[in-house]
Amino acid sequence: MSELALRAEKLDASDELAAKRREFVLDDVVYLDGNSLGALPVAVPGRVGDVVRREWGELRIRSWTESGWWTAPERIGDRIAPLVGAAAGQIVVGDSTSVNVFKALVGAVRLARETGPGRDEIVVDATTFPTNGYIAGSAARMTGCTLRPVAPSEVPGALGGRTAAVLLNHVDYRTGRLHDLPSLTAAVHAAGAPVVWDLCHSAGALPVGLDEHGVDLAVGCTYKYLNGGPGAPAFLYVRADLQDRFDSPLPGWNSHAEPFGMRAEYRPATGAPRGRVGTPDILSMLALEAALDVWDGVPVDAVRAKSLALTDFFLECVEAYVAEGRVACLTPRPHGERGSQVALRCEDAGEVMERLIGRGVVGDFRHPDVLRFGFTPLYVGFADVERAARVLAEVLEEVPV
Amino acid sequence: MSELALRAEKLDASDELAAKRREFVLDDVVYLDGNSLGALPVAVPGRVGDVVRREWGELRIRSWTESGWWTAPERIGDRIAPLVGAAAGQIVVGDSTSVNVFKALVGAVRLARETGPGRDEIVVDATTFPTNGYIAGSAARMTGCTLRPVAPSEVPGALGGRTAAVLLNHVDYRTGRLHDLPSLTAAVHAAGAPVVWDLCHSAGALPVGLDEHGVDLAVGCTYKYLNGGPGAPAFLYVRADLQDRFDSPLPGWNSHAEPFGMRAEYRPATGAPRGRVGTPDILSMLALEAALDVWDGVPVDAVRAKSLALTDFFLECVEAYVAEGRVACLTPRPHGERGSQVALRCEDAGEVMERLIGRGVVGDFRHPDVLRFGFTPLYVGFADVERAARVLAEVLEEVPV
Repeated sequence: MSELALRAEKLDASDELAAKRREFVLDDVVYLDGNSLGALPVAVPGRVGDVVRREWGELRIRSWTESGWWTAPERIGDRIAPLVGAAAGQIVVGDSTSVNVFKALVGAVRLARETGPGRDEIVVDATTFPTNGYIAGSAARMTGCTLRPVAPSEVPGALGGRTAAVLLNHVDYRTGRLHDLPSLTAAVHAAGAPVVWDLCHSAGALPVGLDEHGVDLAVGCTYKYLNGGPGAPAFLYVRADLQDRFDSPLPGWNSHAEPFGMRAEYRPATGAPRGRVGTPDILSMLALEAALDVWDGVPVDAVRAKSLALTDFFLECVEAYVAEGRVACLTPRPHGERGSQVALRCEDAGEVMERLIGRGVVGDFRHPDVLRFGFTPLYVGFADVERAARVLAEVLEEVPV
Repeated sequence: MSELALRAEKLDASDELAAKRREFVLDDVVYLDGNSLGALPVAVPGRVGDVVRREWGELRIRSWTESGWWTAPERIGDRIAPLVGAAAGQIVVGDSTSVNVFKALVGAVRLARETGPGRDEIVVDATTFPTNGYIAGSAARMTGCTLRPVAPSEVPGALGGRTAAVLLNHVDYRTGRLHDLPSLTAAVHAAGAPVVWDLCHSAGALPVGLDEHGVDLAVGCTYKYLNGGPGAPAFLYVRADLQDRFDSPLPGWNSHAEPFGMRAEYRPATGAPRGRVGTPDILSMLALEAALDVWDGVPVDAVRAKSLALTDFFLECVEAYVAEGRVACLTPRPHGERGSQVALRCEDAGEVMERLIGRGVVGDFRHPDVLRFGFTPLYVGFADVERAARVLAEVLEEVPV
């Protein structure tokens, strides 16, 4: 057994989160794609079966009240809240991330305009996951703004009296770079504008501190580190003191103050439910609720500590096993700049990833030349990491440059 | 046994659709709320279990391609298409009805404006299910239009050169009135504007004829007559010849021509997928797909014929059993003006419905004074109808005016 494999064994033996792995359905694959689709928590199939057979099949329409379907979006929001540093009553679950980015960004522009005229520019991370750029373009068009894509490091210099809203990613989906949420939030606020943070790659992976840092609005994904299942609904955070002024571009009947009053006039609900739109998709929503049970008693700080240990160890193993120069790490080395993934630039990355998957190491390929490996501390261990790096080295020897 | 009960027995014996009832999970309740939440098809729990345990749990990320998750929105759209008179390739499933109304209505306004300036009025059914009015208000605000609520019968007179788009309901959610889709569509077209039809209460209940009548855009619900489950995703129809000009206000990455290209520039997909937004919620989506199996070999005309026979028979039983003047029928008598529900205005309707439900007859109450009974021809029979009217009469005797 190699020195690194021995180290992995010891690290696993002293891992406080190691027992969590048993709460997931896993096999002998090294699953490093939980930043795309989290693994299935053991509790979910039974719960979904009960929702389908009993709550829908037997209680039918009565379940909207008797099984708590109606209040699920805010109830589940409150389950997510502590994972992203938010007090209760500020998060609502529903719709896709893209739809929530639209709500949040248009809402942010409207908030900015309350403070005075002339705010006509939406600043967006130029390296964002594309959907945010597309949706921001639509939000700009529909609010009479210009879209200004800016590299995150240049955002502070781009802000000013014209800034209507800023949309940033906490962790870059491609490189795994962690952006400085506290200082960027402060910079946007200094320019008198609200900021919308996309937490897709940080919620459930590292501390976010939404309340602590005074973030205005945020959206996040629940099927990555939160293991809610394929296409599970996203979440929307609106800071408590902004909720009464949050003016959603999608004022569906679920966000009405009196949803069953069937009023012709729209009067928005108070609190987090104002971010709701139409009827929530209950099967995916309640699968997510069951999936969140794995977080009971898990401090996010412990998750972060293990995440950094995993990515550190992976980088060490890659350096030890892979021929120098064959891959280049896109993920920053400083802990303060690293999310919970490692991205390696690599020639023939598509073919390399295919072979890796064929040999039981599942990451993903991002066009045009990136191998992406996500490290989900609740179910990935150090022996997995060592094996992934070892198999990567083998595959890279088979695929000559 | 009363004469009406005997008639019910005969009608059930000669009902061609009677065997369909066995494809649903039902008990001895008379379920007349399938226009709100359809009953559970027998095939769904097994399919959902397989999606969760095998497709998500075992295949994980591979299921996006290997289990056909990625193409589900348009594949399932093509399953719905024949039920609403649409050729394949024009319907996509995903998001809530409210979100789809927003897409369709903003898209319609943009289509209208291609033909010339001055179109600045969105006409909306003044008696609509409220969410459509709220969303139409937002669409108007964000496209620089005025919202003009008009009673459906007065729509033709309200149309003109300022009309940017018209949003109409095929069947009124409250009264069950069926509006004249062919003639209203022709009237809107004569005014040079596109029309958006809301099919929530007609899809799966009666023939719609989207293609035949040249409808421009339509949205519909899948958890009522299509039995997709609580909060199952809605659908969006964009007529084939308009798809290249359909300009969605929610251009998420799923609607990109090359969704995995991760391009900074948005380039819309061709065809129905242009109506997609973000990652579709797979559990609800695939539950819906399994639910649609009950339609195999079922002609919509047969469903319509039975639906009218059921509502006719219910009205006859109510007239026979209920004291004159105690309820007033809001649903039109002419077949051409009736959907698949009967709405009765009734004093103390809330209490009456509570007692009905307590005695195994489930309809719903709509504020302030409406008893609503939905008739789903795939699983409601004539004996159910007779019993519902009989129990209603008993309850009305207990609740004095």
